[in-house]
Amino acid sequence: MDSIQQSFSVRFTYPVHFTEYLFDQANPLLLSFFEQQRTEGFQKKALFILDEGVTQHHPNLPAQIAAYFKTQSFVQLIPDLITVPGGEQAKNDPALIGRLIDAIDNYGIDRHSYVVAVGGGSVLDLVGYVAAISHRGIRHVRIPTTVLSQNDSGVGVKNGVNYQGKKNFLGTFAPPVAVFNDFQFLTTLDDRDWRAGISEAIKVALVKDPAFFERMEADANALAHRDLEAMKYLVHRCAELHMQHIAGGDPFEMGSSRPLDFGHWSAHKLEYLTDFEVRHGEAVAIGMALDCLYANRIGWLSDNETDRILNLMRTLGFSLYHPALDTDNSEGVLRGLTEFREHLGGRLTILLLKTIGRGVEVHDIDAELVRQSIAFLRETETQPV
Amino acid sequence: MDSIQQSFSVRFTYPVHFTEYLFDQANPLLLSFFEQQRTEGFQKKALFILDEGVTQHHPNLPAQIAAYFKTQSFVQLIPDLITVPGGEQAKNDPALIGRLIDAIDNYGIDRHSYVVAVGGGSVLDLVGYVAAISHRGIRHVRIPTTVLSQNDSGVGVKNGVNYQGKKNFLGTFAPPVAVFNDFQFLTTLDDRDWRAGISEAIKVALVKDPAFFERMEADANALAHRDLEAMKYLVHRCAELHMQHIAGGDPFEMGSSRPLDFGHWSAHKLEYLTDFEVRHGEAVAIGMALDCLYANRIGWLSDNETDRILNLMRTLGFSLYHPALDTDNSEGVLRGLTEFREHLGGRLTILLLKTIGRGVEVHDIDAELVRQSIAFLRETETQPV
Repeated sequence: MDSIQQSFSVRFTYPVHFTEYLFDQANPLLLSFFEQQRTEGFQKKALFILDEGVTQHHPNLPAQIAAYFKTQSFVQLIPDLITVPGGEQAKNDPALIGRLIDAIDNYGIDRHSYVVAVGGGSVLDLVGYVAAISHRGIRHVRIPTTVLSQNDSGVGVKNGVNYQGKKNFLGTFAPPVAVFNDFQFLTTLDDRDWRAGISEAIKVALVKDPAFFERMEADANALAHRDLEAMKYLVHRCAELHMQHIAGGDPFEMGSSRPLDFGHWSAHKLEYLTDFEVRHGEAVAIGMALDCLYANRIGWLSDNETDRILNLMRTLGFSLYHPALDTDNSEGVLRGLTEFREHLGGRLTILLLKTIGRGVEVHDIDAELVRQSIAFLRETETQPV
Repeated sequence: MDSIQQSFSVRFTYPVHFTEYLFDQANPLLLSFFEQQRTEGFQKKALFILDEGVTQHHPNLPAQIAAYFKTQSFVQLIPDLITVPGGEQAKNDPALIGRLIDAIDNYGIDRHSYVVAVGGGSVLDLVGYVAAISHRGIRHVRIPTTVLSQNDSGVGVKNGVNYQGKKNFLGTFAPPVAVFNDFQFLTTLDDRDWRAGISEAIKVALVKDPAFFERMEADANALAHRDLEAMKYLVHRCAELHMQHIAGGDPFEMGSSRPLDFGHWSAHKLEYLTDFEVRHGEAVAIGMALDCLYANRIGWLSDNETDRILNLMRTLGFSLYHPALDTDNSEGVLRGLTEFREHLGGRLTILLLKTIGRGVEVHDIDAELVRQSIAFLRETETQPV
């Protein structure tokens, strides 16, 4: 018999704002957003979920948020501001998902209301997931507080939680309705998190924008010494490149090309091998070093460019070796290749650099050359603290 | 500071096929689909989830499916065909979600592989949800087996499960990659399910297509006597109108207009009040009768048209009254108005008919006129068996 072909497009739009002191009464940005979103006849609510790591550094934040919303009636703030643990544990605990869903239920947060997440990438991932599956998608606002989430995950369209030890096994593609990057949150990050977030900027520069890479080389010392102006440029440009990549390509990743996974196959494995003691951005730095050395060994990336990339990361303070790289059994880093291939659906696709700013995908990796690259890092890098 | 506006569209396409004897070796339709979807370098898998209600009527189905896939290598059939309970209980049991997610994990079903659901709307809703949240969305194929799922939910883009007694509290919008409507499954439905699915066709005709309504009036006796040819036309036309509505409007329901919820505010409540003893389609028939009588009372729908609508449903065998309509307390049917308003986000929007084929939205409902309409049904309808 016959068939009917269904076909439609869904348009997604959201602003990513760059600001400081977001919850200061003098900053109208967030309230203007809610004001613009008013709809006749709807009393919209906003449920805040805060990252414990943020409230520890900013104990006045809940009171500030309450005061900020007191002056208006565009949106009703749910007075119970919920705090959840930060970091990977936010994504590991199924009970947290239940707790947040129950809050959405109890406070009557519907499809016209908002869930607002303030925190690092893990908390944003958790809250984004909960918002995406409740009532088939509640509007969610992201307020990323780390370099990594402000320049990368927080401005994108993914969410996810871990399931029985499998990273991001559960998740969806669900764009936020708005993102507010407040640079002041970056000033209270510890040095490791300040630095770790830079690796995604290096990644996107290496894959897409050689001029941005040169700018980071010029700013390397300033960034290493926590110069906020240099960081603002970096976060803004990285977020912009990341957003362009999403909009220009395959936002919901229906195909199989994933150039922004550069350096990630070994990074994911390294995080696991170290039980997340090595943070994502730190692992990505090592992963990129490994893949650059590999590209150099197969005659792609020049000696000079390889040195420049490794030196930039060293200047920023990254350790480019970790003993877990030498886990010499079936569960070692090379196992990450197999897992990455499975994750991609059966065919390995790894982006390697021809030159700074241009990568080419390969479908085979020579394990011996990976081992040589690891050995080089072991011999040239000082041990991490 | 400044901001970046993100904006992109995501295109979704899927075919809805109408066929018979889908798993017969002589029917190449399903295998052609998998053949067309082949991608160099990927070994795709298909995990089948079957509705127990279907396997009870078709005990050979698992063997038939296994035989059907044996002859080809386009897709690897996971030999363990999973069976889940049908009906609303499929959506009520959180353990089922875990069981299906574990199967996806254990069998290595990735984003390039398929989850294939064979069953009624509830099983499709459950499986669609699990597929949507696993790996940020596994391709799912729907094989609806009831009138209701073939002409309505199964060809659409929603999924969902209940959470602590709240209907569809968890769910997403996630289009399938293909739908295969096999009319032969309709022949083994019990009379109630055969009939119940017709109410969504009446609904879409009343809201969008007066000619279709007239066709159903002409076919009413044939449909009541289970004429499969009349049913094929009905399912095809209803699916088509439903799909046009999705593609032409607001597929992921980001706005608040929901004309296809005609007759549903009281229907949802009636299902709950009867602990789902009254099936969805049966409740929708009663809900439409109620809203037609209401529209007639406010001077919109003519006496003649109101009679025609009620008579069509009576000829088809629908009972248009249920004692639960008279639950006279705060949890009665009228409470459904409040819940529907909350579900919509604070503003009540109910579509009422001006005439057959044209509805207009109202934002207030007069409780006394609803009670009068219920009283009319109580007095004119025979009691349900």
